Amino acid sequence: MELGAVLPMTAEVKGGHLYIGGVDMVALAKSQGTALYVFDEAHLKHRMHEYLSAFRELYPNSDVIYASKSFLNKEVVRLVNAQGLCLDVSGGGELACALSVGFPAERVFVHGNNKTPLELREAMQAGVGRIVVDSFDELDRVSVIAGELGITQDILMRITPGVEADTHEYIRTGCEDSKFGFTMKDSFALQAIGRALKTENVNLAGLHCHIGSQIFKLDPFAEAANVMVQLMDDVRKEYGVTLGELDLGGGLGIAYLADDEPASVEEFAKMLTSAVKDACSKFSFPEPRLLVEPGRSITANAGVTLYTVGTIKDLPGIRKFVAIDGGMSDNIRTALYHADYEPVIANKADQPRTEIVTLCGKHCESGDAVVLDMPLQSAEVGDVACVFGTGAYNQTMASNYNGQPRPAVVFVEDGNARVVTRRETYEDLYRRDV
Amino acid sequence: MELGAVLPMTAEVKGGHLYIGGVDMVALAKSQGTALYVFDEAHLKHRMHEYLSAFRELYPNSDVIYASKSFLNKEVVRLVNAQGLCLDVSGGGELACALSVGFPAERVFVHGNNKTPLELREAMQAGVGRIVVDSFDELDRVSVIAGELGITQDILMRITPGVEADTHEYIRTGCEDSKFGFTMKDSFALQAIGRALKTENVNLAGLHCHIGSQIFKLDPFAEAANVMVQLMDDVRKEYGVTLGELDLGGGLGIAYLADDEPASVEEFAKMLTSAVKDACSKFSFPEPRLLVEPGRSITANAGVTLYTVGTIKDLPGIRKFVAIDGGMSDNIRTALYHADYEPVIANKADQPRTEIVTLCGKHCESGDAVVLDMPLQSAEVGDVACVFGTGAYNQTMASNYNGQPRPAVVFVEDGNARVVTRRETYEDLYRRDV
Repeated sequence: MELGAVLPMTAEVKGGHLYIGGVDMVALAKSQGTALYVFDEAHLKHRMHEYLSAFRELYPNSDVIYASKSFLNKEVVRLVNAQGLCLDVSGGGELACALSVGFPAERVFVHGNNKTPLELREAMQAGVGRIVVDSFDELDRVSVIAGELGITQDILMRITPGVEADTHEYIRTGCEDSKFGFTMKDSFALQAIGRALKTENVNLAGLHCHIGSQIFKLDPFAEAANVMVQLMDDVRKEYGVTLGELDLGGGLGIAYLADDEPASVEEFAKMLTSAVKDACSKFSFPEPRLLVEPGRSITANAGVTLYTVGTIKDLPGIRKFVAIDGGMSDNIRTALYHADYEPVIANKADQPRTEIVTLCGKHCESGDAVVLDMPLQSAEVGDVACVFGTGAYNQTMASNYNGQPRPAVVFVEDGNARVVTRRETYEDLYRRDV
Repeated sequence: MELGAVLPMTAEVKGGHLYIGGVDMVALAKSQGTALYVFDEAHLKHRMHEYLSAFRELYPNSDVIYASKSFLNKEVVRLVNAQGLCLDVSGGGELACALSVGFPAERVFVHGNNKTPLELREAMQAGVGRIVVDSFDELDRVSVIAGELGITQDILMRITPGVEADTHEYIRTGCEDSKFGFTMKDSFALQAIGRALKTENVNLAGLHCHIGSQIFKLDPFAEAANVMVQLMDDVRKEYGVTLGELDLGGGLGIAYLADDEPASVEEFAKMLTSAVKDACSKFSFPEPRLLVEPGRSITANAGVTLYTVGTIKDLPGIRKFVAIDGGMSDNIRTALYHADYEPVIANKADQPRTEIVTLCGKHCESGDAVVLDMPLQSAEVGDVACVFGTGAYNQTMASNYNGQPRPAVVFVEDGNARVVTRRETYEDLYRRDV
């Protein structure tokens, strides 16, 4: 298997079978059933640690905020806590999950372009560290609720820096035509910051931006860092206030395909910290606390999905469909973004991938596929198909389409497999019905 | 509100408020919270009845099969049963829902390109009426399981008739490049039918095809009917067997936009029954039992989604974003298919729609929108936004992205509102986590 950075770090082939975390994926599929989300726990821990140490080494006054929207359950929150990262939540449910396992609220950053009043209240009552304010409507709302609760809420303000990242339009968030944040255009952001500084019951701790996701070229990050420090300098000039925090969001790309060559966390940290330092030097601005928010770049390659091959339909000259027992219910990214993934047959992992196939799902829709026209070992009914790089935005976006119960989540490490989220049952599906 | 066929049949405006089923949508949004799925029960019943009576009147030996994938909960199954329709399920979960409220298994049709062995066994043990066999792998599987259970299972075979419907590629299923069914090409379907006729423990009751969804031009349906009857005639010539059932699937388009003019159920029934009769006459083939499988055309316009406006972001010259308290978690169709919907402000329903806005969601993704650039009344924070035509493929495709609890489902009729699916709680979300 020459799949490079696509693989979880402990992936290996033994006796023709794919192993992750020392666990035979073929045996695991049989014992746990499929579809199944499997995470390499060592990989998750390593990436979290790698991020924190890479940034802290180059820039001691920094924090790494895990973006829970990419992959979330109680166990991953425990990992994030144990590794010393902060947590980014963008909905009341994500916060509830974090609090349910005792994650310290003061290390929680609350995101979202339209947090509901109830979500804001829940977050402030819990004592979250920062609310990232996205609009004037929200600024006023935070102020009112903080006043009612008798607290001063630390906030960041989300700025749209006008930087275009080279990625899918759905996940490109830094450009002007965006529902997110305060635009830099016509000094709007600067005026908005002025208003925030005068708003009661809130303390403007710093600024935030996020230019997009799955970004390969690092230059836009440096550009964004420069724009943001310049804005902080403008704030100092205009209002005499020196903001102390700069959150540059997430967005580091990962390898979905074997020949993808994303930047390493080290390169990313080096580029980002240099850019911030250079900009601070240029504007004689004191170096702020630096925050980054990785999600996908921690989880995507740590996770794989296992499926069982159910039917095979070869249409000579057209396409070969290998149908698996999951699909758009457990992985909507392929239909949504035409996402690419590398598949292997886990029980034939030592064999060459000689056929080009589409791994289609079991759902009643032609767009239902997980892998589009990729090389695979010769598949047979009953084979265990493994799709790499599914650790991000699969589990958190899963649905019950066609009454499909959502998969279990299994963590593997040192030869042990443990279920951290049990498989959904039919009873679960209609529990809320009268 | 001049929105034509987009509206639920009982929609009206009173005192500036939108009413459905005699219930004030503004008051309902306040009492039940938002996002909220609301269904006009009279509309659902009317469409079910309209389908059955339209077909039975023109073609007595016919049945209407409700496609549960478009909208499913226990209460809608009860309605389907009470209205005398059959039920199409395409996954074990859908079947479990049907059986849990006592829907007669013999009126259940089981679909899917890759039913798992467990799903097939569950279906056959329950005594389902028909399994629509999609592949040789599945034919063998049904035979083995039926043998083990000591039964003869009635089946239909799904044929890919090679008819192109003019619709989105994701929901166009009748063409050659499809994961579904047995292709007509090179007499493959005919040979497959020959094999099915010789397969033990199964009884080939007839044939099935489905050319796609959301189809406006009716001609392809007639073309498919003709192709299928011709194939049945070929089967008679080749094997001396006269098949007695023809299931022509679903696919009748509905109005998502005010100026959409889909065919009526009556026109659809007239065209389809005429086409079948004409083809039968042409081939001197005895008229088979005719089956149709409407889903969207029963549910889509019966359902609306209510949201509360949370933030408004006006980017002059670019776009006006009106952010609501839902989004791609409760309606993935906009991001997935660039679907169109008509919105109104329910508390300003008597006012003209003077602005062009995008109703964006609350999720951390630029692609997260429910309504793209459509006219709307001048929106203010706290307004209740109503999106029409969301009754199909919204609730069944919903996710918990960003920890968003899924909405409640409310049926309204004769001035009464009743919750048929309660809103998800935070506890529900992480119930399966260790």
